[in-house]
Amino acid sequence: MERQDKDLAFMLQYENIAWYENGEVKILDRRIYPSEISFVICKTYTEVTRAIKDMVTQSAGPFTAAAMGMALAAWECRNLGKKDQIDFLEKASENISHARPTTIKRMQLITEGCLEAAKLALEAGIPVPEAIRDHAVNNNNIRYAKVGKIAEYLVDMIPDKGTIMTQCFGETIVGQMLRAARERGNRIKVVCPETRPYFQGARLTATVAHDMGFDTTVITDNMPAWYMEREGVDVFTCAADAICMDGYVVNKIGTYQLAIVAKYMKIPMFVTGAPDKGHQVHDTIKIEMRDPEFPLQAMGVRTADQGVKGWYPSFDITPPHLISGIVTDRGIFSPYDLNRYFESGDLGMYEMVV
Amino acid sequence: MERQDKDLAFMLQYENIAWYENGEVKILDRRIYPSEISFVICKTYTEVTRAIKDMVTQSAGPFTAAAMGMALAAWECRNLGKKDQIDFLEKASENISHARPTTIKRMQLITEGCLEAAKLALEAGIPVPEAIRDHAVNNNNIRYAKVGKIAEYLVDMIPDKGTIMTQCFGETIVGQMLRAARERGNRIKVVCPETRPYFQGARLTATVAHDMGFDTTVITDNMPAWYMEREGVDVFTCAADAICMDGYVVNKIGTYQLAIVAKYMKIPMFVTGAPDKGHQVHDTIKIEMRDPEFPLQAMGVRTADQGVKGWYPSFDITPPHLISGIVTDRGIFSPYDLNRYFESGDLGMYEMVV
Repeated sequence: MERQDKDLAFMLQYENIAWYENGEVKILDRRIYPSEISFVICKTYTEVTRAIKDMVTQSAGPFTAAAMGMALAAWECRNLGKKDQIDFLEKASENISHARPTTIKRMQLITEGCLEAAKLALEAGIPVPEAIRDHAVNNNNIRYAKVGKIAEYLVDMIPDKGTIMTQCFGETIVGQMLRAARERGNRIKVVCPETRPYFQGARLTATVAHDMGFDTTVITDNMPAWYMEREGVDVFTCAADAICMDGYVVNKIGTYQLAIVAKYMKIPMFVTGAPDKGHQVHDTIKIEMRDPEFPLQAMGVRTADQGVKGWYPSFDITPPHLISGIVTDRGIFSPYDLNRYFESGDLGMYEMVV
Repeated sequence: MERQDKDLAFMLQYENIAWYENGEVKILDRRIYPSEISFVICKTYTEVTRAIKDMVTQSAGPFTAAAMGMALAAWECRNLGKKDQIDFLEKASENISHARPTTIKRMQLITEGCLEAAKLALEAGIPVPEAIRDHAVNNNNIRYAKVGKIAEYLVDMIPDKGTIMTQCFGETIVGQMLRAARERGNRIKVVCPETRPYFQGARLTATVAHDMGFDTTVITDNMPAWYMEREGVDVFTCAADAICMDGYVVNKIGTYQLAIVAKYMKIPMFVTGAPDKGHQVHDTIKIEMRDPEFPLQAMGVRTADQGVKGWYPSFDITPPHLISGIVTDRGIFSPYDLNRYFESGDLGMYEMVV
């Protein structure tokens, strides 16, 4: 597939969304993007679960993939009776939502939402796979609209021609933030630590920022402190895999270290997303430990000698005292004051965390 | 060449030393070690200068390579008259010592020492190339003995079965520290951040530690903070490219960030080496900026998209308030109290910095 568009539309259409169509789910393989644009094709929902586990897609990608996996499950069981279809989909929801231990609760919100959409479709007698897909697309559109609000609040925090440092891949938030900055005429500079071991910062964040026309620099993960001191950074920002109600933030490994360094350098750290009532305290968060051999290679080439051990936590946890603000669709909150986010009464915010 | 020895002898013989013999200098190519053991063969001293510039060897390697380059220069001009030989060697000294901007002064100590050795050999009528080589070997042996003392003082700081985190490749200091720990029966654990963009931590430090029988773990450069918090680290230690008299330490990019994180985690940071009277203050240090394209790849594989910028300072500078002690051959000094190192009056200490 040729890359035809250099802007947000491209990113949303081809990069963010795993897509269900005619009995298969196509997922952009972000492990090799952007050096190659290729898709993993899943013929069963268990293949979708495997793709999520194998990190074919990242950031918010797995949540879209999970929903599309439910659409595929509906296609797989289309010839069963109604009750058996619901049993099948319940099993699929359980399976897909447990693909990665750190995101089970959030995945369940997605897959159980799809289950509800399936029941309504079955009652109405309309095709279930397409109903689930449309439900997922609608949810994504709602999420994009909310992310747009987050982006506006975040850009308020960036000085004119300011430099931002990112961590990992902020999915739609990066694209929408840059679009908002561009609309305001703020030519910000983007500095992306490469985010080992998968290089999401170098491969994904930097590509989006550069495609959108911004001055984009990639540095290795040991350079942020020196970059901040020598070149200057105005804002450090990242998204989150979970924002706990106690103000602790779970995000891609490396976030905690950057937060410590930013604090030392007196640079504000803004986390985008929304607090998650499913995680009242951070103590119960299970940090997924991945294959320890993985950090012993880079881009598929072995670095360390045989016999040397590796260590690979997917995420780390940043304490609230390092965080300047949680930037949500309802404004910017102190990480110590997250209950106030829910004062307007809307309880269904979690799925819009990017 | 087969790797025959798993201990320090191997490391000293084959890895640290560039070697002059019969009109050529062989330098172990550390850019690809340990996946492959191969040597860059230099037939002229300008090829040695190029190899140093291209980072064929690192840590203390360039200093040995510089001395061997002087031996090669002496071979190149062996058929000239005495005065012309000295002119030739003076030009070689100037050329080799300027291979990398950050280490010019220290290189000059080496190459000018070789020049003196050459003059003595010419007077005595003995072969100059071999005289320079023997001078270099003798200097290295003196250095190794001094490093042995540093190693003993450093091991004093490591609790029994303690965990140390390193940065980059500490050359002989790593090997001697581990040998000293082993002799004391202290089974320390070694954690090596990989040290992008060249992966010296993963490829070199970890290999030495593992070869010497220690429990060795490699992590990516964004993991140290989380490792310190979750697994525990007792001591962070590194060598230095220059220890300025004002207590600021110049070392491989990433050191500063680790120092900030160690301080936050209440982990002591010990820098090994000796203060350098050639650098009274850090302000005059010129930080070498290398090819900005280099951090945009890993192990030869491109990571970022075309058009994205890179940024690649070889070194950074760590301020004294982050440093717990400078571990020298004469004991451990506060970084604020480095003049006291010279109280015993020995002025010729700089070349022994590892």
